[in-house]
Amino acid sequence: MALVGGSPASVASMEAKQRACAEAGIFCRTVHLSEQAGQAELCPLIQLFNEDRRIHGILVQTPLPSRLDEHEAFISICPEKDVDCCHPLNIGKFAIGHAPVLPCAPAAIQRLLLDSGYETSGKHVVICGRESLTARLLAQALVQKRPDANATVTLCDRIANGLPPVTREADIIVTALGQPESVTGAMVREGAVVVDASNNIVPDPSARRGYRVVGDVHLPSVLAKAEAVAPAPGGVGPMTIAMVLANTLALARRTAAG
Amino acid sequence: MALVGGSPASVASMEAKQRACAEAGIFCRTVHLSEQAGQAELCPLIQLFNEDRRIHGILVQTPLPSRLDEHEAFISICPEKDVDCCHPLNIGKFAIGHAPVLPCAPAAIQRLLLDSGYETSGKHVVICGRESLTARLLAQALVQKRPDANATVTLCDRIANGLPPVTREADIIVTALGQPESVTGAMVREGAVVVDASNNIVPDPSARRGYRVVGDVHLPSVLAKAEAVAPAPGGVGPMTIAMVLANTLALARRTAAG
Repeated sequence: MALVGGSPASVASMEAKQRACAEAGIFCRTVHLSEQAGQAELCPLIQLFNEDRRIHGILVQTPLPSRLDEHEAFISICPEKDVDCCHPLNIGKFAIGHAPVLPCAPAAIQRLLLDSGYETSGKHVVICGRESLTARLLAQALVQKRPDANATVTLCDRIANGLPPVTREADIIVTALGQPESVTGAMVREGAVVVDASNNIVPDPSARRGYRVVGDVHLPSVLAKAEAVAPAPGGVGPMTIAMVLANTLALARRTAAG
Repeated sequence: MALVGGSPASVASMEAKQRACAEAGIFCRTVHLSEQAGQAELCPLIQLFNEDRRIHGILVQTPLPSRLDEHEAFISICPEKDVDCCHPLNIGKFAIGHAPVLPCAPAAIQRLLLDSGYETSGKHVVICGRESLTARLLAQALVQKRPDANATVTLCDRIANGLPPVTREADIIVTALGQPESVTGAMVREGAVVVDASNNIVPDPSARRGYRVVGDVHLPSVLAKAEAVAPAPGGVGPMTIAMVLANTLALARRTAAG
């Protein structure tokens, strides 16, 4: 894994992945470059990982500092070791159903829903946060004609005063807006299932670390209407880490199988 | 261009592209393989096009006969000559906003709407026909935060008795279902704009050629409700051909610029 600078949330996420690898007995090498590191440090590091035969899965923790080009970082990952389906070749293969592994966060959301008994087939899933690659890839996953997908899918974003009216018709809402507690009960249909896929850092002088992590969902009002909520932090995040491990194993098996 | 066997519609489409190239003064080489041709004929042909310095844009006319693997054909196109953004690397680059050219049919639909004065920004666009790559790529194009996109986008498919209720809330409906005249006025909101992106062959003993080409839209009933309809054949098809030419020129310019 490579991390460049990064928010407390990024560092915490990387540390959680490290711990999960250790528990699962997966060799994990993490390099944390300084906030000032440039493409000239990051890409050669990825190249080292590409060539290291002990490594089957490479992850660049995002977001990168804005002066770095994520696209350039992703395209330098060897596609066979691209554990989060970030390389454009794999994103393209994913779009046509041929990706070696599914992107971790969308796969985690699908798994959370299915394992909780909420099928997407025939349902209307509204995904809020068009800007997010997770949102777009989840949309592509859910429209596929498979028993674990097969949904009507809407991709939307915030409008002036909240979410567009279509959100109130969703059977399932997934939020990837990056806007703390902005999705309220008024935007949710009675009985909907809500999955919060954002971890937002909010300053909080009363907290030990000076901040707290909240999702996009305003829990008190949404819980009053929804049938079920996967809150953030706590829902999609840990399941995404499980998917990173599962994908690493899948890629290692592919390599072993030649 | 390469065509393997193919329906009368595919042959007609290829011929129309040839004529358009001739009118625009673009060199065009077309190879029409027999219906029996296999991957062993198609991929080496694409390889020849890849190596031919006179050729800047390569198009494989789809659908291919079902025993051929479209994915294998697309991935053998040199990404720099991929005029319809079919290569998975380019599909992936398109998803993250870095494609060398936009896929022709989605670009044509965007252009038709904008040139007719129907902005998508802030509108709800419902795209019917989740199975279609055109539909999925159009969805990705329309959710981007650009003045010519910026829409709320729903991808859906037919359900038991027609289209899901969300269709009746669409400001703009795009159909890529491949189901002749199946979209009726009852599925369309008063004042909606409808773009038909399917050309379906329907047997018609009274027609000179024994068939006729119709879209997904049942024109009499939809025209009674919609503000505007781009019918098929006649709307998206010719504009898509224009995009093939525009993309070929763009790729030639990129090559010339080194």
